[in-house]
Amino acid sequence: MSIPIKTIERMSLYRRVINRLVEAKKETIFSYELGKLINRSAAQVRRDFMEIGQKGNPQKGYNILDLRDALNELMIEPEGQKIALVGIGNLGRAVLTYFMGRSPNLVISAAFDSDNKKTNRVIAGCKCYDIGKMKDIIKKNKITIGIMTVPLTVAQDVADQLVSAGIKSIVNWAPIHIEVPKHVFLENRDITMSIEKAAYFAKK
Amino acid sequence: MSIPIKTIERMSLYRRVINRLVEAKKETIFSYELGKLINRSAAQVRRDFMEIGQKGNPQKGYNILDLRDALNELMIEPEGQKIALVGIGNLGRAVLTYFMGRSPNLVISAAFDSDNKKTNRVIAGCKCYDIGKMKDIIKKNKITIGIMTVPLTVAQDVADQLVSAGIKSIVNWAPIHIEVPKHVFLENRDITMSIEKAAYFAKK
Repeated sequence: MSIPIKTIERMSLYRRVINRLVEAKKETIFSYELGKLINRSAAQVRRDFMEIGQKGNPQKGYNILDLRDALNELMIEPEGQKIALVGIGNLGRAVLTYFMGRSPNLVISAAFDSDNKKTNRVIAGCKCYDIGKMKDIIKKNKITIGIMTVPLTVAQDVADQLVSAGIKSIVNWAPIHIEVPKHVFLENRDITMSIEKAAYFAKK
Repeated sequence: MSIPIKTIERMSLYRRVINRLVEAKKETIFSYELGKLINRSAAQVRRDFMEIGQKGNPQKGYNILDLRDALNELMIEPEGQKIALVGIGNLGRAVLTYFMGRSPNLVISAAFDSDNKKTNRVIAGCKCYDIGKMKDIIKKNKITIGIMTVPLTVAQDVADQLVSAGIKSIVNWAPIHIEVPKHVFLENRDITMSIEKAAYFAKK
């Protein structure tokens, strides 16, 4: 089953919304209600759930626990997945603090920096190591995902190191595009660029 | 002149790279050299610079100061543009700290929160106000860009308030898609989604 990136983005959103509905003890939901919650059409919701084998009941809508299970099966690796974060500046710390404890199956299990004031300690619940140990720790702990919050001058070098350590997906917050081999998934998240882009369209 | 969003993203990158070259006192550069610096082809670079009226000299390449001026003219509003940031949590603080002082023409000039422990003070050089004053302050200071780092439960309401205050562009870091009128530019930057997406492609 090959699902497009845009669909996976919606699946991530559905999963969060559905988890809130489970907590609220809601049992069923119609596609138009779910569509409203993520600002998509009911038709889009129905197409997306068809992809993961979910059909609603015309009278009652979808069973929320079934949706949760199907979304978890799609998105979650039962043994869990581990993330390495590289670059413990303001942004790195914010991502650590923001993401820590959000998902029991998706954990930032190591952070790396070249500044020895930031290493050999725990920040926001995460062990921080010298970047020289990165390859070893990533391999030993079977970490497959890398988050880069490093300065642009070292971004490509850090990406190369992550790839050679066996990382399969990179989320890059450094303000530069980096190159990775085709088998590695890359998501670029450049703060300066997103703000400058917004500024460009605001001044028109 | 209507330039596609993807081109504007590259223009933002070129501008940062060119500013570094100006600082390094480099005078000329070839398209293939610039392409290498942002990981794009020389042909792409030449097409992009044609858009802003820049032609290279076949012997010497592009004049770097000319490129700087053309990129500034495209991207920068000479009187400056002001940004409001809403939501002073960990992520909001990181964005404030990260972006403050980066660009003299693009300044986060006010931050807002509903928690009175965070308001009526200065954080990372930025004045923080109660969210009840948002509309007034945005209008009075002619702020046109909004950055949202708020919880998902209030995201749509905050977006509506920003739009009714006259904001023209929104960068949304809240983990939910929001709806804005067509005349407002919206960029969604959802941290959880980007990490979950990377996780999905890492487990395949």
